Amino acid sequence: MKTVAIAGVGLIGASFGLALRKAGFSGEILGVSSPPAIEAGLRSGAITRAATLEEAAESAGLIYLAQPVDRILTTLETLGPIAPASCLITDAGSTKSAIVRKASEYVREASFLGGHPLAGKEQSGAEMADADLFRGRPYVLTPLRAAAEPTRDLRLWLERLGANVIEMSPAEHDAVLAFTSHLPQLLSTALAYTLARQSNPAVAEVFGPALLDMTRLALSPPEVWESIFATNKEHILTAFDEFLQSGRELRTAVELGDLRSIFAQSATFARVVRKLPSTPDGVDH
Amino acid sequence: MKTVAIAGVGLIGASFGLALRKAGFSGEILGVSSPPAIEAGLRSGAITRAATLEEAAESAGLIYLAQPVDRILTTLETLGPIAPASCLITDAGSTKSAIVRKASEYVREASFLGGHPLAGKEQSGAEMADADLFRGRPYVLTPLRAAAEPTRDLRLWLERLGANVIEMSPAEHDAVLAFTSHLPQLLSTALAYTLARQSNPAVAEVFGPALLDMTRLALSPPEVWESIFATNKEHILTAFDEFLQSGRELRTAVELGDLRSIFAQSATFARVVRKLPSTPDGVDH
Repeated sequence: MKTVAIAGVGLIGASFGLALRKAGFSGEILGVSSPPAIEAGLRSGAITRAATLEEAAESAGLIYLAQPVDRILTTLETLGPIAPASCLITDAGSTKSAIVRKASEYVREASFLGGHPLAGKEQSGAEMADADLFRGRPYVLTPLRAAAEPTRDLRLWLERLGANVIEMSPAEHDAVLAFTSHLPQLLSTALAYTLARQSNPAVAEVFGPALLDMTRLALSPPEVWESIFATNKEHILTAFDEFLQSGRELRTAVELGDLRSIFAQSATFARVVRKLPSTPDGVDH
Repeated sequence: MKTVAIAGVGLIGASFGLALRKAGFSGEILGVSSPPAIEAGLRSGAITRAATLEEAAESAGLIYLAQPVDRILTTLETLGPIAPASCLITDAGSTKSAIVRKASEYVREASFLGGHPLAGKEQSGAEMADADLFRGRPYVLTPLRAAAEPTRDLRLWLERLGANVIEMSPAEHDAVLAFTSHLPQLLSTALAYTLARQSNPAVAEVFGPALLDMTRLALSPPEVWESIFATNKEHILTAFDEFLQSGRELRTAVELGDLRSIFAQSATFARVVRKLPSTPDGVDH
């Protein structure tokens, strides 16, 4: 891997460039992106020069697609047929089945390996890029027909970036992320929507830190989420229906004044994902 | 106000003591609480000595009830009948109607003024106390039959602590908080409960920062929330039903692939509560 190309020099793409550098990668890093993203990427050192997708296909051993899901799908249509056998294409899209399916249709000679770094920040854009963005975070790879050698090579680099690489099938990835990422997004949006529709202006004034936590995701741009939801609709609707079922159970528990069992199971899960010991602890409100 | 007593020297109570000190209060601050809370309060300087509720009633011009809602209700039964006319009792409970009703039944000669600081932290306890906890945060007062002078006096102190004092009726407070505090708690718990019931262990492994945001409140102790829900059940069930309605609309929008309108309204609300300009911005995932 002498030359890397990053398509989509936003938060994830630029962080990948910076992280590669920090981990010792000394080759060229081409950036395929909009002029302002290229400029920010050059300034931070995430990329060494701008390139077209065609130039990237010619010279890069690894092409990293860090665009929104819908853009990854169209990039694969262009890139797939022209990338040579020496090239590994990987992506950082939030859903995997549709992307992997598209790759199997369009990528001819190159290898393709689906990926999804579970990393993010409050704000997007190359300016927010961080060489340690992937450190300690899960990084899903969905190896299918990828050649063994470039896959091993990428996996090694991701581990050098500090990521916890987890292999899953595209379908399992999408089923799990429907619960751990897409459902939280829907709930945050639905909560903010519920409050937006209240006529009493005090709902936007009298609140504590809890409301800010729970509405942060509602700031997300719909154009990014439309393609995530469109490419994982069934799993998302299933997750949402399971949530509604849980919600109805909790509503009954509120009516009966008996919250202990549901709160205990929820708190246990919330502690597990934080790697906290199982002794109880408090949150104020 | 020469002597203040704080009943319940936890995060809120101890922070109130520290904040008073920082704002220039030089009198005694009595603490009515469990031995470990008293010890932590003495160590941090939030209180000057331990006292019983009876001693507090005898000597304090202000008694600050910073206990969970159910404890405030029982404290009022004991304290109300013995507190003299020179005493102002206020509370920091998360619901107001039941507490104000209880006060109007039990507080004989003293004044009572319901209150609710919209402040909190991830972790509870006097050890986490912070003299700036109330700074820049809303602080609801629900003045009803409180005498004008002690009310003015308390309001002045709260403003010196940097709080944004907002006056509301107890009923309006409870209706608003059902949406801004109690509903977010229910959603966080229901989300964690939904994920806790998935058989695939990957739901506790493959996630990004969004899931941590959205399940933080699920760490809350049920004993605190049982009395909040019990004293605001109707408003909470209404808020939850309105959320379910919003959720069904959003579900339909996902099915139709048309998220723009709901996302736009939600993002606008999320920006308003953050005092952000109305230009769009991104959240990564």
